[in-house]
Amino acid sequence: MSSDSNKPNIAAVIVRDAEPGDIPQVYKLMEELILFLANQDLRLYTEEEFFQFVFGKNPMCLCLVAVLKEDPNFVVGYSTYFTMFNSVDGLSTTLEELYVKSNYRGKGIGTILWKKVTQKALDMGCNSTIFVAHQWNKRALDMYTRHGCENLTEMNGKLLLHFSKKDMEDFVKTSEKA
Amino acid sequence: MSSDSNKPNIAAVIVRDAEPGDIPQVYKLMEELILFLANQDLRLYTEEEFFQFVFGKNPMCLCLVAVLKEDPNFVVGYSTYFTMFNSVDGLSTTLEELYVKSNYRGKGIGTILWKKVTQKALDMGCNSTIFVAHQWNKRALDMYTRHGCENLTEMNGKLLLHFSKKDMEDFVKTSEKA
Repeated sequence: MSSDSNKPNIAAVIVRDAEPGDIPQVYKLMEELILFLANQDLRLYTEEEFFQFVFGKNPMCLCLVAVLKEDPNFVVGYSTYFTMFNSVDGLSTTLEELYVKSNYRGKGIGTILWKKVTQKALDMGCNSTIFVAHQWNKRALDMYTRHGCENLTEMNGKLLLHFSKKDMEDFVKTSEKA
Repeated sequence: MSSDSNKPNIAAVIVRDAEPGDIPQVYKLMEELILFLANQDLRLYTEEEFFQFVFGKNPMCLCLVAVLKEDPNFVVGYSTYFTMFNSVDGLSTTLEELYVKSNYRGKGIGTILWKKVTQKALDMGCNSTIFVAHQWNKRALDMYTRHGCENLTEMNGKLLLHFSKKDMEDFVKTSEKA
């Protein structure tokens, strides 16, 4: 038990699937996450687009929210994830984002969110979770490796590449054949 | 023009969306890809499951095939890709797999496949392509960087993590709260 009465007891938190009405709050939390990751708001989509990514005809991701039991409409954290498929891993889940509001950290809410994503992945028949972590984010990396996550970049030299829209546009215009 | 008459002229290749009837051939090519990447057949799914991943009710990926004009049912290469979403990149495409049969390489079929994925990503409104490359695969890496792809692992320290099914199962059983 924490002596900090501003922090909720873990029993006071519920993790559930996001509902349409949660989207405005999750969208705001994403702004905090982008500031944390990139130190500026680079957001490339509107709240309405994000709504469609989760609840539209062709969903791009699944979304869980952590809310307070005493205020079940107040979102203190979220996770986005989705299932994908490749030859080597078969069906797997990508833990895309996991974020808890700064004044609600240190109570295990992130772990509960991650655990719920993991349970859902197992229920969907996934063989693994594949996700990207930041080398500088030691606290998160420690948590991941403590639970057995392997670093494929160090073990197998896997690299993450990024192809910008401008370069994509230039590429499709080239006549290069090989 | 190549003097090797076993290799098709680039004009003799068509890249199109996979059709249900292509799946058995693509499934066989995936076996070759796994052998190439992992040096053993670790395939974690059946042909029928793969069919469902592409054409089922909840598709996991999109699939393009490269076929010969003179034999439009003969698949010489394929690419799997899908759209995803995260806070920093917005809507993006993942180029998951790109494979050309060994005796059809060196004629630019891989580039045409990649170009078609790129065009489809732009048509879907994606802001970027995000994908994983192998450090040892110099030939592929050269192609990617030549067209402007940035290495996020080297630039931003992004790491790829893998959480195995066994570790996932153990994790959801723990009572750890933080």
